[in-house]
Amino acid sequence: MTNEKQLVGEKAAEFIQDGMTVGLGTGSTAYYFVLALAERIKNEGLKIVGVPTSIATAELAQEQGITIRSIDEVEQLDITVDGTDEFDDDLNGIKGGGGALLIEKIVANNSQEIIWIADHTKKVDQLGAFPLPVEVITEGSQQLLRYFEEKGYHPTLRLDSEGNPYVTDHKHYIIDLHLEKITHPYDLAEELIHLVGVVEHGLFLNRANKVIIAEDDAAQIITK
Amino acid sequence: MTNEKQLVGEKAAEFIQDGMTVGLGTGSTAYYFVLALAERIKNEGLKIVGVPTSIATAELAQEQGITIRSIDEVEQLDITVDGTDEFDDDLNGIKGGGGALLIEKIVANNSQEIIWIADHTKKVDQLGAFPLPVEVITEGSQQLLRYFEEKGYHPTLRLDSEGNPYVTDHKHYIIDLHLEKITHPYDLAEELIHLVGVVEHGLFLNRANKVIIAEDDAAQIITK
Repeated sequence: MTNEKQLVGEKAAEFIQDGMTVGLGTGSTAYYFVLALAERIKNEGLKIVGVPTSIATAELAQEQGITIRSIDEVEQLDITVDGTDEFDDDLNGIKGGGGALLIEKIVANNSQEIIWIADHTKKVDQLGAFPLPVEVITEGSQQLLRYFEEKGYHPTLRLDSEGNPYVTDHKHYIIDLHLEKITHPYDLAEELIHLVGVVEHGLFLNRANKVIIAEDDAAQIITK
Repeated sequence: MTNEKQLVGEKAAEFIQDGMTVGLGTGSTAYYFVLALAERIKNEGLKIVGVPTSIATAELAQEQGITIRSIDEVEQLDITVDGTDEFDDDLNGIKGGGGALLIEKIVANNSQEIIWIADHTKKVDQLGAFPLPVEVITEGSQQLLRYFEEKGYHPTLRLDSEGNPYVTDHKHYIIDLHLEKITHPYDLAEELIHLVGVVEHGLFLNRANKVIIAEDDAAQIITK
């Protein structure tokens, strides 16, 4: 598994060109991309500006000597490389297992190209086995939990390791919806974004341009 | 002016019945409602639970001896009384001049009935002369400002009295859109809510059941 993540992380780094502004994803697979990118910067003297999608990734990138800027300090991003928790044949995905979905979506939204990297287990026929994260305002979160319960969405408030509500980098809560199957992802995204108190959700629809996964020890590039 | 605000605040308090859970709005007009409600509670021994829409209103209500609960500590609200910065003949409105639009909308959304109270200057033929507040995630706010600029929405980042970005109770920024006229409020609401980084906006469409304003020194009740 570690091998697969490293393989796709390194493959993604090959797509980065000198002078690019690059969104840096969050999570165990994006980790290897950041390492591989730092390696190319060192070895090839590439001029790269990285835009991290979380505090954790910002720290990693700085340790690795990558120049970083916030999303508001750049005009636009050329490319973003990020992990995904699930993706289907249409390259629609669920993200947010790591809790950084809000900034991941803001960064992706300002990127000309988006590459997801994932081990082969993340490819699914239908989205939904992975719990769908919904980032919500703390006030009113109990009301939203009740609403999701009534809708049969099997919500759980995400907790941290000490059993307290997990708080995102932007001081919101996350409600995970245990849906098992998402038959109509676009309809669900519409419903969620219209709910007062919902800041964002983990459905990333029609956003990725390609996904890189590992198959038989080789990186495989999937496009639509 | 003060007279009008007091008049409508007191009129709204007449609609509160014993045993109700009541959303308490924010701002200079809602202030008089809270005072009048506290007066009725004292004089008539009403059992009322108040749900404040801001830290400021929570403090006021407590000073006045009103029992308060957060939105997550109650099942549902019977009624919410709040101010509005503008409203039209359809009882659509713009709120958020005071910066509390997010919780005002969450509370309104969980209320069976909504009454707005306002001085007569708030009634308009068309929404938009009042700048439309949009509550946004701090990260990415510059990108949103650029987007609104390109759309011709004349955005300004709201500042506090010291010239720093104004920060809401929930640690977000507010971008005010100086639109002058909002011809299609529903379309605009749809556009705004779909923007990544927008938490909420100040358009309150099809939410108020009645508006109480003052006309010739008498409270006038407007319904649809």
